[in-house]
Amino acid sequence: MEKPARALRHYPETSPEIDRLVMQLIGRIADKWTMMVIEILTEKEALRFGELSRACEGISQKMLTQTLRALERDGLVTRTVFPVIPPKVVYSLTDLGLGLSEAFCGVWIWALKNHENIHHAREAYDAALLK
Amino acid sequence: MEKPARALRHYPETSPEIDRLVMQLIGRIADKWTMMVIEILTEKEALRFGELSRACEGISQKMLTQTLRALERDGLVTRTVFPVIPPKVVYSLTDLGLGLSEAFCGVWIWALKNHENIHHAREAYDAALLK
Repeated sequence: MEKPARALRHYPETSPEIDRLVMQLIGRIADKWTMMVIEILTEKEALRFGELSRACEGISQKMLTQTLRALERDGLVTRTVFPVIPPKVVYSLTDLGLGLSEAFCGVWIWALKNHENIHHAREAYDAALLK
Repeated sequence: MEKPARALRHYPETSPEIDRLVMQLIGRIADKWTMMVIEILTEKEALRFGELSRACEGISQKMLTQTLRALERDGLVTRTVFPVIPPKVVYSLTDLGLGLSEAFCGVWIWALKNHENIHHAREAYDAALLK
Protein backbone atom coordinates (compact mmCIF):
# COMPACT_ATOMS: atom_id res chain seq x y z
CA MET A 1 0.00 0.00 0.00
CA GLU A 2 1.23 3.46 -0.79
CA LYS A 3 2.25 5.43 2.28
CA PRO A 4 -0.25 8.19 3.16
CA ALA A 5 2.26 11.07 2.98
CA ARG A 6 3.24 10.02 -0.53
CA ALA A 7 -0.40 9.56 -1.44
CA LEU A 8 -1.04 13.11 -0.26
CA ARG A 9 1.70 14.46 -2.50
CA HIS A 10 -0.43 13.44 -5.44
CA TYR A 11 -3.78 14.38 -3.95
CA PRO A 12 -5.25 16.76 -6.52
CA GLU A 13 -7.83 18.62 -4.42
CA THR A 14 -5.74 20.51 -1.86
CA SER A 15 -6.50 24.20 -1.86
CA PRO A 16 -5.70 27.17 0.41
CA GLU A 17 -9.29 26.99 1.66
CA ILE A 18 -8.89 23.35 2.75
CA ASP A 19 -5.48 24.10 4.25
CA ARG A 20 -7.12 26.82 6.36
CA LEU A 21 -9.86 24.45 7.48
CA VAL A 22 -7.32 21.78 8.43
CA MET A 23 -5.26 24.29 10.41
CA GLN A 24 -8.43 25.50 12.10
CA LEU A 25 -9.40 21.94 13.04
CA ILE A 26 -5.91 21.11 14.26
CA GLY A 27 -5.95 24.35 16.26
CA ARG A 28 -9.31 23.38 17.72
CA ILE A 29 -8.07 19.91 18.59
CA ALA A 30 -4.93 21.41 20.12
CA ASP A 31 -7.26 22.84 22.73
CA LYS A 32 -7.02 20.27 25.48
CA TRP A 33 -10.70 20.34 26.43
CA THR A 34 -11.85 19.73 22.86
CA MET A 35 -9.54 16.76 22.56
CA MET A 36 -10.69 15.46 25.91
CA VAL A 37 -14.39 15.75 24.99
CA ILE A 38 -13.79 13.96 21.67
CA GLU A 39 -11.77 11.25 23.41
CA ILE A 40 -14.40 10.69 26.09
CA LEU A 41 -17.29 10.64 23.60
CA THR A 42 -15.31 8.23 21.37
CA GLU A 43 -15.11 5.90 24.31
CA LYS A 44 -18.48 6.40 26.02
CA GLU A 45 -20.67 7.11 22.96
CA ALA A 46 -23.37 9.20 24.68
CA LEU A 47 -23.21 11.24 27.88
CA ARG A 48 -25.26 13.85 29.71
CA PHE A 49 -23.73 17.26 30.45
CA GLY A 50 -23.08 16.37 34.09
CA GLU A 51 -21.43 13.07 33.18
CA LEU A 52 -19.18 14.82 30.64
CA SER A 53 -18.37 17.48 33.20
CA ARG A 54 -17.24 14.87 35.73
CA ALA A 55 -15.26 12.97 33.08
CA CYS A 56 -13.40 16.16 31.99
CA GLU A 57 -11.74 16.70 35.33
CA GLY A 58 -11.04 20.39 35.96
CA ILE A 59 -13.28 21.83 33.23
CA SER A 60 -15.63 24.70 34.16
CA GLN A 61 -19.31 24.55 33.18
CA LYS A 62 -18.80 27.60 30.95
CA MET A 63 -15.84 26.08 29.14
CA LEU A 64 -17.64 22.75 28.63
CA THR A 65 -20.66 24.61 27.23
CA GLN A 66 -18.45 26.58 24.81
CA THR A 67 -16.52 23.48 23.76
CA LEU A 68 -19.70 21.51 23.06
CA ARG A 69 -21.28 24.40 21.11
CA ALA A 70 -18.22 24.75 18.86
CA LEU A 71 -18.22 20.99 18.21
CA GLU A 72 -21.96 21.04 17.56
CA ARG A 73 -21.60 23.95 15.13
CA ASP A 74 -19.01 22.00 13.12
CA GLY A 75 -21.34 19.01 12.98
CA LEU A 76 -18.96 16.88 15.06
CA VAL A 77 -21.17 16.48 18.12
CA THR A 78 -24.92 16.07 18.30
CA ARG A 79 -27.22 16.99 21.17
CA THR A 80 -30.27 14.80 21.59
CA VAL A 81 -33.18 15.85 23.80
CA PHE A 82 -35.43 13.10 25.14
CA PRO A 83 -38.92 14.42 25.92
CA VAL A 84 -39.14 13.10 29.45
CA ILE A 85 -39.63 14.98 32.72
CA PRO A 86 -37.13 16.33 33.61
CA PRO A 87 -35.81 16.53 30.00
CA LYS A 88 -32.84 14.29 29.32
CA VAL A 89 -30.14 15.68 27.03
CA VAL A 90 -27.24 13.59 25.77
CA TYR A 91 -24.22 14.48 23.69
CA SER A 92 -22.56 12.11 21.27
CA LEU A 93 -20.19 12.18 18.30
CA THR A 94 -21.78 12.30 14.88
CA ASP A 95 -20.35 10.11 12.11
CA LEU A 96 -18.34 13.17 11.07
CA GLY A 97 -16.98 13.54 14.62
CA LEU A 98 -16.15 9.85 14.87
CA GLY A 99 -14.30 10.14 11.55
CA LEU A 100 -12.21 13.03 12.87
CA SER A 101 -11.52 11.11 16.04
CA GLU A 102 -10.33 8.17 13.95
CA ALA A 103 -8.17 10.41 11.77
CA PHE A 104 -6.45 11.82 14.86
CA CYS A 105 -6.11 8.35 16.23
CA GLY A 106 -3.22 7.86 13.80
CA VAL A 107 -1.34 10.60 15.61
CA TRP A 108 -1.96 8.88 18.94
CA ILE A 109 -0.80 5.53 17.67
CA TRP A 110 2.30 7.16 16.20
CA ALA A 111 3.01 8.83 19.56
CA LEU A 112 2.48 5.59 21.46
CA LYS A 113 5.02 3.91 19.20
CA ASN A 114 7.51 6.77 19.11
CA HIS A 115 7.46 8.69 22.38
CA GLU A 116 10.70 7.07 23.55
CA ASN A 117 12.42 8.09 20.32
CA ILE A 118 11.38 11.69 20.93
CA HIS A 119 12.65 11.61 24.50
CA HIS A 120 15.98 10.18 23.33
CA ALA A 121 16.24 12.77 20.55
CA ARG A 122 15.65 15.58 23.05
CA GLU A 123 18.22 14.21 25.49
CA ALA A 124 20.81 13.84 22.71
CA TYR A 125 20.11 17.34 21.38
CA ASP A 126 20.37 18.95 24.82
CA ALA A 127 23.55 16.99 25.64
CA ALA A 128 25.17 18.12 22.37
CA LEU A 129 24.36 21.76 23.21
CA LEU A 130 26.25 21.44 26.53
CA LYS A 131 29.43 20.15 24.88
CA MET B 1 -10.47 -4.19 9.60
CA GLU B 2 -11.20 -2.78 13.02
CA LYS B 3 -11.73 0.99 13.00
CA PRO B 4 -8.80 2.91 14.50
CA ALA B 5 -10.86 4.72 17.14
CA ARG B 6 -12.16 1.40 18.39
CA ALA B 7 -8.70 -0.09 18.22
CA LEU B 8 -7.49 2.79 20.38
CA ARG B 9 -10.12 2.03 23.00
CA HIS B 10 -8.32 -1.22 23.65
CA TYR B 11 -4.79 0.11 23.31
CA PRO B 12 -3.21 -0.87 26.59
CA GLU B 13 -0.26 1.53 26.77
CA THR B 14 -1.91 4.96 27.02
CA SER B 15 -0.66 6.90 30.01
CA PRO B 16 -0.90 10.51 31.21
CA GLU B 17 2.72 10.97 30.07
CA ILE B 18 1.89 9.88 26.51
CA ASP B 19 -1.27 12.00 26.53
CA ARG B 20 0.86 15.02 27.44
CA LEU B 21 3.32 14.26 24.64
CA VAL B 22 0.53 13.91 22.10
CA MET B 23 -1.05 17.19 23.20
CA GLN B 24 2.37 18.82 22.98
CA LEU B 25 2.90 17.49 19.46
CA ILE B 26 -0.57 18.50 18.36
CA GLY B 27 0.03 21.94 19.88
CA ARG B 28 3.32 22.14 18.01
CA ILE B 29 1.69 21.09 14.76
CA ALA B 30 -1.10 23.60 15.36
CA ASP B 31 1.60 26.23 14.89
CA LYS B 32 1.18 27.10 11.23
CA TRP B 33 4.90 27.43 10.50
CA THR B 34 5.71 24.02 11.94
CA MET B 35 3.00 22.43 9.84
CA MET B 36 4.20 24.29 6.77
CA VAL B 37 7.83 23.20 7.26
CA ILE B 38 6.75 19.57 7.73
CA GLU B 39 4.50 19.76 4.66
CA ILE B 40 7.22 21.29 2.49
CA LEU B 41 9.89 18.84 3.63
CA THR B 42 7.48 15.94 3.06
CA GLU B 43 7.14 17.10 -0.52
CA LYS B 44 10.66 18.36 -1.32
CA GLU B 45 12.70 15.92 0.82
CA ALA B 46 15.77 18.16 1.39
CA LEU B 47 16.11 21.94 1.27
CA ARG B 48 18.60 24.62 2.23
CA PHE B 49 17.60 27.31 4.71
CA GLY B 50 17.09 29.91 1.97
CA GLU B 51 14.94 27.54 -0.10
CA LEU B 52 12.79 26.73 2.94
CA SER B 53 12.53 30.40 3.75
CA ARG B 54 11.21 31.18 0.26
CA ALA B 55 8.83 28.21 0.33
CA CYS B 56 7.35 29.32 3.71
CA GLU B 57 6.00 32.59 2.41
CA GLY B 58 5.89 35.25 5.11
CA ILE B 59 8.10 33.51 7.69
CA SER B 60 10.87 35.54 9.35
CA GLN B 61 14.42 34.17 9.51
CA LYS B 62 14.19 34.12 13.30
CA MET B 63 10.92 32.15 13.28
CA LEU B 64 12.24 29.66 10.73
CA THR B 65 15.38 29.13 12.82
CA GLN B 66 13.28 28.55 15.97
CA THR B 67 10.89 26.21 14.15
CA LEU B 68 13.73 24.13 12.69
CA ARG B 69 15.54 23.91 16.05
CA ALA B 70 12.41 22.68 17.83
CA LEU B 71 11.86 20.05 15.12
CA GLU B 72 15.52 19.04 15.26
CA ARG B 73 15.40 18.73 19.05
CA ASP B 74 12.42 16.34 18.77
CA GLY B 75 14.32 14.25 16.23
CA LEU B 76 11.82 15.08 13.47
CA VAL B 77 14.15 17.08 11.25
CA THR B 78 17.82 16.52 10.54
CA ARG B 79 20.40 19.10 9.51
CA THR B 80 23.16 17.83 7.23
CA VAL B 81 26.31 19.86 6.64
CA PHE B 82 28.26 19.16 3.44
CA PRO B 83 31.95 20.08 3.83
CA VAL B 84 32.21 22.24 0.72
CA ILE B 85 33.14 25.93 0.38
CA PRO B 86 30.90 27.71 1.19
CA PRO B 87 29.41 25.02 3.49
CA LYS B 88 26.13 23.59 2.25
CA VAL B 89 23.50 22.81 4.88
CA VAL B 90 20.27 20.98 4.09
CA TYR B 91 17.27 20.16 6.23
CA SER B 92 15.15 17.07 5.77
CA LEU B 93 12.62 14.98 7.68
CA THR B 94 13.97 12.02 9.63
CA ASP B 95 12.09 8.72 9.48
CA LEU B 96 10.45 9.85 12.72
CA GLY B 97 9.38 13.15 11.11
CA LEU B 98 8.07 11.40 8.03
CA GLY B 99 6.08 9.07 10.28
CA LEU B 100 4.48 12.04 12.05
CA SER B 101 3.75 13.66 8.72
CA GLU B 102 2.05 10.46 7.60
CA ALA B 103 0.06 10.21 10.82
CA PHE B 104 -1.23 13.77 10.36
CA CYS B 105 -1.94 13.00 6.74
CA GLY B 106 -5.01 11.10 7.92
CA VAL B 107 -6.40 14.37 9.26
CA TRP B 108 -5.77 16.07 5.92
CA ILE B 109 -7.45 13.31 3.96
CA TRP B 110 -10.40 13.42 6.36
CA ALA B 111 -10.65 17.21 5.86
CA LEU B 112 -10.42 16.89 2.09
CA LYS B 113 -13.30 14.44 2.18
CA ASN B 114 -15.40 16.31 4.74
CA HIS B 115 -14.85 20.04 4.44
CA GLU B 116 -18.19 20.53 2.68
CA ASN B 117 -20.00 18.68 5.47
CA ILE B 118 -18.44 21.03 8.01
CA HIS B 119 -19.45 24.10 6.00
CA HIS B 120 -23.00 22.80 5.72
CA ALA B 121 -23.12 21.99 9.44
CA ARG B 122 -21.98 25.53 10.29
CA GLU B 123 -24.54 27.11 7.97
CA ALA B 124 -27.34 24.99 9.40
CA TYR B 125 -26.26 25.73 12.98
CA ASP B 126 -26.05 29.49 12.38
CA ALA B 127 -29.39 29.50 10.51
CA ALA B 128 -31.08 27.67 13.41
CA LEU B 129 -29.76 30.28 15.86
CA LEU B 130 -31.40 33.07 13.85
CA LYS B 131 -34.84 31.44 13.90
